[in-house]
Amino acid sequence: MELGSRGAAPGGVSVSAVLPAGGSGERLGGTTPKQFCAVQGRPLVSYAVRAMERISWISDVIVVVSPENIETMKTIMEKYGHKKVTVVEGGITRHRSIFNGLKVFAENDFSSHLLQKPEVVIIHDAVRPFVEEDIVSKVVMAAKEHGAAGAIRPLVSTVIASAADGCLDHSLERARYRASEMPQAFLFDIIYEAYQQCTEHDLDYGTECLHLALKYCKTNAKLVEGTADLWKVTYKRDLYAAESIIKDNLSQQVCVITNVKETLARVGFLLPESLKSQIKVEAISVSLSENDSHLQNIISGQCYNFVCVNDKRCAIQEIQELVDMLEKSSIPLLYPVVLILVHLDVSENNSFNIGMEDLTAIKKFARETKKKNILVYGLLIQCK
Amino acid sequence: MELGSRGAAPGGVSVSAVLPAGGSGERLGGTTPKQFCAVQGRPLVSYAVRAMERISWISDVIVVVSPENIETMKTIMEKYGHKKVTVVEGGITRHRSIFNGLKVFAENDFSSHLLQKPEVVIIHDAVRPFVEEDIVSKVVMAAKEHGAAGAIRPLVSTVIASAADGCLDHSLERARYRASEMPQAFLFDIIYEAYQQCTEHDLDYGTECLHLALKYCKTNAKLVEGTADLWKVTYKRDLYAAESIIKDNLSQQVCVITNVKETLARVGFLLPESLKSQIKVEAISVSLSENDSHLQNIISGQCYNFVCVNDKRCAIQEIQELVDMLEKSSIPLLYPVVLILVHLDVSENNSFNIGMEDLTAIKKFARETKKKNILVYGLLIQCK
Repeated sequence: MELGSRGAAPGGVSVSAVLPAGGSGERLGGTTPKQFCAVQGRPLVSYAVRAMERISWISDVIVVVSPENIETMKTIMEKYGHKKVTVVEGGITRHRSIFNGLKVFAENDFSSHLLQKPEVVIIHDAVRPFVEEDIVSKVVMAAKEHGAAGAIRPLVSTVIASAADGCLDHSLERARYRASEMPQAFLFDIIYEAYQQCTEHDLDYGTECLHLALKYCKTNAKLVEGTADLWKVTYKRDLYAAESIIKDNLSQQVCVITNVKETLARVGFLLPESLKSQIKVEAISVSLSENDSHLQNIISGQCYNFVCVNDKRCAIQEIQELVDMLEKSSIPLLYPVVLILVHLDVSENNSFNIGMEDLTAIKKFARETKKKNILVYGLLIQCK
Repeated sequence: MELGSRGAAPGGVSVSAVLPAGGSGERLGGTTPKQFCAVQGRPLVSYAVRAMERISWISDVIVVVSPENIETMKTIMEKYGHKKVTVVEGGITRHRSIFNGLKVFAENDFSSHLLQKPEVVIIHDAVRPFVEEDIVSKVVMAAKEHGAAGAIRPLVSTVIASAADGCLDHSLERARYRASEMPQAFLFDIIYEAYQQCTEHDLDYGTECLHLALKYCKTNAKLVEGTADLWKVTYKRDLYAAESIIKDNLSQQVCVITNVKETLARVGFLLPESLKSQIKVEAISVSLSENDSHLQNIISGQCYNFVCVNDKRCAIQEIQELVDMLEKSSIPLLYPVVLILVHLDVSENNSFNIGMEDLTAIKKFARETKKKNILVYGLLIQCK
């Protein structure tokens, strides 16, 4: 799957990402580590990887997994077409795993193929499936300026310190503190330096990369307000929540494709406008016979609903191109894709009619695509 | 709906509860305050109230709502049969609302009917739908001994303090801190004294009752490790999670009822034992013609699946008693109740046969109960 050309990063820096995915997920219950739990049939880690891969200016995505899960991760990469991923063997703690991920860019003897060292490295979690380009971009830009940056969220509960006897010692004023979330980003040299300097105790018991950058490189990370969807899947209820969010997204996004002809421009504008109040709409004007990178990005972003507006009597050939693109992606493997063909009759006279032959061809086409889990519906509209 | 006799509280103290439900739920998005959002058709606050009402030794449940929601809350009480609830008008902040709730037990001129002051008062949240008797009991006992107590949970994210420039000042060592959750409990006189003494600033900006007890009554609350299900519904994803948990619970609990005859004792033991690995089982041995308080408690605990084992040729009359109980509760209003009748033939000879007449009677019975959303299935088993 082509994932779009590698665009320019914010501020023109080179950027790669490290995703620690070595956790055991004991808080979740069950034996499968949470990053490999299936949500709507797809492992959680694949959503997080996809979120990174969708961002065109991220070059490499290093996924760090425990030795026993390397094969599992490679299977996931293959199945879901993750092309930017390098799998790295993790350590026994989070910090050790991240350190291993960073070494791929810096130590010749660590990896069979040394990857190009990025100026800025993003550290994200395999168990945070929803992260938008906007917040990643903000964190990367802040890291470029300040050396380190991380997303934060308001605290949901008051944080308290307990005394040795198990009683309340003091409670923190909630407004003064924040929860440190992901993604975080660092100038590569800063975070790598911090990891090289840090103690065994840090590597074994620490949890916070921002803390290492401060302690060893005197870098005060810039804190960036994140969105609520950055939360970490920790408990079983979080898997439920993730599943519901994904289901919601599936049905709430549609891509409206109009071909480039001038006559269709008005419809191509009005339809998305009127849909926007109900559903998230991507509208593109493109000839389907070209291999358009924007359309490719939408598909790799896992859009499941398409409306194609055209004025041809029978646009099957063009639609076949879209069906081919969808088939090449992993999308219809998991969920049915809905494709609504709107045939727009803009001719002055009423000569536009679909004959028996055309109808049969469309029906046959729909039957064939249905086998590929792509559901095609047709709509004929006469405009006068 | 009879909610079971009022049992003895842990340590023999008198206990009531206050549930602040005045929040606006702005973090959730949408216009309905989260405590009134429907989860599986039932408002969230009703689940939290039910959790308190199910505990026999809690006398009164004070629900504090903003003035505009008093009628809504009264409708909910009526619809879901909340008999222990007194609705009280809240203040503009959480602390002011809790204070109003406490006044019902202490100030003659505040309420038309002064409720009996409890020794220990529980403070819980209207947006924490899942709380088990076990943790409530632990918190109440700890409050009796220490004057104050509250449930805590490990922190999910590292907590950090930001400097004035929006950069990291320092991060807290995660292991030393805890998230303060609900329920909390207090000797009534301590928390009431604390609220009477606290400043306007406390009432307007404070969030933590344990803090008030410490600051104004020098009472260091006992901290009690809570379970993961105590979490607060804060974001939309939490509503999704709550819904999935409720759905799971619906299908994962069954009550096996055997009548008291000796011949059935063995089946009444074996069936629950073999079911236990799959599903949460309550097994009771009771004659359905008696109004059994344990069975009433199971029904008020919203069990939706029943297996009735008996050895009568046609036990419709007895089953009718169960159907009546279920009908009186609000349970089949919301979800279908499944009732499996197991007719056990333990006679030595093969004389046990269900004739046409019996079959017709059972079918007619099932048709009638189906109208009440109670689905009856029959099963005849011959044991030799």
